[in-house]
Amino acid sequence: MDGRSVIERCDVLAGCTEEPGRITRPFASDAMRRAHQYVQEWMRQAGMKARRDNIGNLRGRYEGSGSATLLLGSHLDSVRDAGKYDGPLGVMVAIAAVQQLQDQNRRLPFAIEVLAFADEEGLRFGSTYLGSRAVAGTFDRRDLDLVDSAGVTMAEAIRAFGGDPAGIAEDRLSGELLGYFEVHIEQGPVLEARALPVGVVGGIAGQSRILIEFRGVAGHAGTVPMDRRRDALTAAAELVLAAEAAGATQRGLVATVGRLEVEPGAANVIPGRTTLSLDVRHADDRIRLEVCEALLSRTRELAKRRKLGVEIRPVSENAAVRCGPRIVSLLTEAVRDSKQQPFELTSGAGHDAVAMSSLTDVGMLFVRCKGGVSHNPAESVTASDVSISTDVVGRFLELMAER
Amino acid sequence: MDGRSVIERCDVLAGCTEEPGRITRPFASDAMRRAHQYVQEWMRQAGMKARRDNIGNLRGRYEGSGSATLLLGSHLDSVRDAGKYDGPLGVMVAIAAVQQLQDQNRRLPFAIEVLAFADEEGLRFGSTYLGSRAVAGTFDRRDLDLVDSAGVTMAEAIRAFGGDPAGIAEDRLSGELLGYFEVHIEQGPVLEARALPVGVVGGIAGQSRILIEFRGVAGHAGTVPMDRRRDALTAAAELVLAAEAAGATQRGLVATVGRLEVEPGAANVIPGRTTLSLDVRHADDRIRLEVCEALLSRTRELAKRRKLGVEIRPVSENAAVRCGPRIVSLLTEAVRDSKQQPFELTSGAGHDAVAMSSLTDVGMLFVRCKGGVSHNPAESVTASDVSISTDVVGRFLELMAER
Repeated sequence: MDGRSVIERCDVLAGCTEEPGRITRPFASDAMRRAHQYVQEWMRQAGMKARRDNIGNLRGRYEGSGSATLLLGSHLDSVRDAGKYDGPLGVMVAIAAVQQLQDQNRRLPFAIEVLAFADEEGLRFGSTYLGSRAVAGTFDRRDLDLVDSAGVTMAEAIRAFGGDPAGIAEDRLSGELLGYFEVHIEQGPVLEARALPVGVVGGIAGQSRILIEFRGVAGHAGTVPMDRRRDALTAAAELVLAAEAAGATQRGLVATVGRLEVEPGAANVIPGRTTLSLDVRHADDRIRLEVCEALLSRTRELAKRRKLGVEIRPVSENAAVRCGPRIVSLLTEAVRDSKQQPFELTSGAGHDAVAMSSLTDVGMLFVRCKGGVSHNPAESVTASDVSISTDVVGRFLELMAER
Repeated sequence: MDGRSVIERCDVLAGCTEEPGRITRPFASDAMRRAHQYVQEWMRQAGMKARRDNIGNLRGRYEGSGSATLLLGSHLDSVRDAGKYDGPLGVMVAIAAVQQLQDQNRRLPFAIEVLAFADEEGLRFGSTYLGSRAVAGTFDRRDLDLVDSAGVTMAEAIRAFGGDPAGIAEDRLSGELLGYFEVHIEQGPVLEARALPVGVVGGIAGQSRILIEFRGVAGHAGTVPMDRRRDALTAAAELVLAAEAAGATQRGLVATVGRLEVEPGAANVIPGRTTLSLDVRHADDRIRLEVCEALLSRTRELAKRRKLGVEIRPVSENAAVRCGPRIVSLLTEAVRDSKQQPFELTSGAGHDAVAMSSLTDVGMLFVRCKGGVSHNPAESVTASDVSISTDVVGRFLELMAER
């Protein structure tokens, strides 16, 4: 199977959607059911035994001569109005790699289990990594009570999809695991800028997300003199620029204000309140936490100087994940064997590998995507880059088998 | 009539509202009809002949011994969830001043016409100064086709209120006019900060309102390195701070960004587009235009440096109004005669006096309001300050009569 066939399969999955004309494939939806019919068939063609677990992951198992298992996978769900490759590409490359073994009638000293995760994006219930958390044994049962926009609980959605909410604990993988390995589009512009088709992920950045609210005093934009204002937006503007400047101080560090809401938000009213999000990521948790603390102390200093109220609300904090050194080194060798220049980069986005890292060593291979665009119908990869990624995965499996 | 009686009448008018529990009195509404019943009666008690014109202004005329007319007034309509004094206070003080003449059975060498304007705020149809523009002869007939939120056109609303849309041209005042004079709450904190009950308005600031849009590239907050971003929010933040700094360069200048919208506006997405409003005001048009030009050239420079698209859309521009020198000087004398310290200030807010300035000389007296708050149920004035303002108006009328 070459890159073109993999891309054609991604095209087929793109047709499994809840919204005609665009790709929207939520957890446990009819669109997902149709996607499973295709993927299950492709798993069977590749010599795998396919089954669906309780959370709704589709799992294909290709037995080996030994008892240990190597996990390959990615997710089949999507965001709203998604592209074709974020998730499905990793599942399709994994199946293609197994198909290659099957075509050669070859068994490895370990089994391969391809995991097509039920939900990574969290579109339907707002809670991410549902599929990989079930497999890793970290699924939070309280999530079962979450309700989608139609008023359906997660437990009801799982039952309607054929799973048993009470049995999710049994979805946890056990036995001897060699690791979890995922192919994914980069979702960033780094590989494209370096003219590289693929890159080896060294780790997944840790992430702090914080919500900050400045409270000033709304007032008439014409009648309150500048020196008597307590403007909540000018303070927010200082923080936006401080975050940008902080992000530029170290390689691999990013700091973003993506949300900024102004109240009351009228042209002739001095802003009385602003709410903004701060997102800071780095592969080294110590650096991330230092930068966050510096920005929050700047926030407090700003509020004090401008006589504003301030509320700082930590929203989430995820520690960085280091990829398994053995997987990284074998992958790097596989890239070199595939006549490509090895290049290691950090993933700034979260992936199923984050959840899987609590169960076993993880690794990832990024594939160059056009303009670094993702979560968008414009997502694009080339057949040639995808071919290279399947070659690398094939070579990686051989190296695993040899050592 | 003392300040307390004037405030009691404002309380009565506060009961004329479309929304129980809060003050909302739109143009040509039932609430306005009820307000007119009270005001008409108070005008009659003060010896005035009252009538309603086509646009829906209530006009009370107190004849004098000569043919010239001095106009006093303000507006009776309100914003949504308004305070009690923005508008009504000026009408009530004007009626109280005439009542004083009537109580003394006195006629002045000129007639007084009290104008209770139908619409200054523009709540119902989004177009301001409807009442004063009709009186000044600058009403725009195209406004008759504007539609309110219930689908009613302005022409229909005027007819339902008893006016004839075709006759609005006849609402224009003619004859020998001595000027238009308006009492209004300050809507700002300057008088309070200087511990002064009243202030004489020297002019009404000119105003530029501009909408600015920055277009960058939305992207993943985790995967796009800082040096490859085209963030539309960081550019907007620089402009917010530039406007604040510009506003602080000259006394009487204000520059405000009151609206700032971020798209897509998610915590994990680099902002791809921002839209912000810029509002610049000063009593000297040359200064205002220079500051606007400097900020817009900064805007273009910012967009160029940050590789963003930019669109600059002028929304409105109003020239400054200078109050009539004779009115200002007589008012200043009247303030001194009332044992108060004369103080001249610029109005940063627009008022009916802006529209009336195209017809005749205008003047305004500001009354201190608590915390500078307006357009809010918390609007507050003291009976003692209002008493001082009626004294000043009474003395002003005497000075006008003497000279």
